[in-house]
Amino acid sequence: MSNIKLILEYDGTEYAGWQRQDNAITVQQVLEEALARLTGEDITVIASSRTDSGVHARGQTVNFHTRSSIPPEKYSFALNALLPPDIRVVSSERVADDFHSRYSAKGKKYRYCMVVGPHGTAIGHRYYAHITPPLDIEAMEQSCRHFIGTHDFAAFRATGSPVKSTVRTIFDASLERDGRYLYFVVKGDGFLYNMVRIMAGTLIYVGKGKIKPDEIPEILLSRDRRRAGITAPAHGLILEEVYY
Amino acid sequence: MSNIKLILEYDGTEYAGWQRQDNAITVQQVLEEALARLTGEDITVIASSRTDSGVHARGQTVNFHTRSSIPPEKYSFALNALLPPDIRVVSSERVADDFHSRYSAKGKKYRYCMVVGPHGTAIGHRYYAHITPPLDIEAMEQSCRHFIGTHDFAAFRATGSPVKSTVRTIFDASLERDGRYLYFVVKGDGFLYNMVRIMAGTLIYVGKGKIKPDEIPEILLSRDRRRAGITAPAHGLILEEVYY
Repeated sequence: MSNIKLILEYDGTEYAGWQRQDNAITVQQVLEEALARLTGEDITVIASSRTDSGVHARGQTVNFHTRSSIPPEKYSFALNALLPPDIRVVSSERVADDFHSRYSAKGKKYRYCMVVGPHGTAIGHRYYAHITPPLDIEAMEQSCRHFIGTHDFAAFRATGSPVKSTVRTIFDASLERDGRYLYFVVKGDGFLYNMVRIMAGTLIYVGKGKIKPDEIPEILLSRDRRRAGITAPAHGLILEEVYY
Repeated sequence: MSNIKLILEYDGTEYAGWQRQDNAITVQQVLEEALARLTGEDITVIASSRTDSGVHARGQTVNFHTRSSIPPEKYSFALNALLPPDIRVVSSERVADDFHSRYSAKGKKYRYCMVVGPHGTAIGHRYYAHITPPLDIEAMEQSCRHFIGTHDFAAFRATGSPVKSTVRTIFDASLERDGRYLYFVVKGDGFLYNMVRIMAGTLIYVGKGKIKPDEIPEILLSRDRRRAGITAPAHGLILEEVYY
């Protein structure tokens, strides 16, 4: 048996997220069907993160075990010939038997993409949340700094999502600007359910003056989801990289 | 009657091009239907360029005549509320009665988008033509220079397209690189049918060593479509700007 690791890029628009479902097409199903055609085996793929419906990935990392003799580095080419253009295998390699794309992950990087202006963007409308000005970007930058470090992020997770601990460490959080495009880029050891989208929604509230940057530490301490901002739309989110 | 000019951005993926057709949805039809809802008038919109099926626009310029009392600068907001997210009106203004988006145009800028690497891109797969390496980008840059100036571009137009003259002036033609993304950007006083896609396809042939940069002047002089490269795929092309 070989343990094969793939790095996947996908446009999540047409999929009901990563994880297999009975009544909707998911990225996991499409990839597993391509692997079944390629290897003749019934393969279950493990992903670093179960991305939500509409969320995209540039560095989703997955692994699977196979008896196939296909050279590990050839999976990317062979799978891309079978996959639709909105799912690409960026690279493939053999990894140690105990590598597990979820449990071995040391951290992740996400990017939340926004277009700021009177009108949204048509080219790239699948990837950018539209924010109308005015937007206090300096206040948003100040807020980013309050996310960095080890905090209890209970106020920044979808309510009702069970988890052992709501403490996470954010390595870095910043804004990048490129003309009318604005990106919230965040790296951390792990993220709660909807956490990046609630962080982005809270930054948008700060930009709109509904929350002040200095309130972020209080919101963290409150552990109260109602004090943070909205959950920003799924289509603005990209899982950029998984660290091992 | 007011003459209203709109600048349009659209993702052409879902449309059979700009121009109205009987059996397919086009950008013109969707825009005219939105204008009919907004004004109650039966409006025909004139575009600077009839973009082909799958081709995108960031600066398509159109105009129409109306008796409506809607303030000219409000059309963008009112239309964007009625249009799908893959068509956006970037701006709207009243222009002189004799402004004609096609006949008044002094030039256009196009961008042909490529992703160079072993695999295509999933995020943005609607906008980038995939080119596999090796690719001699320096040779492609040298070739660009041969396009600049006034030439007979008969070799660079789809055969069978009737036109008075095949002479056009190219103001500028260059390549831009951004990581694995490569862009062919060209500005000129006018373009023949499929001309930018054939120029891009010819540059790809140069990059692949099938045509030498020095052959471009000969190909121009030959006026023979068979000597130029392929017609590069529609989805890589964006109409960026129209000059007046």
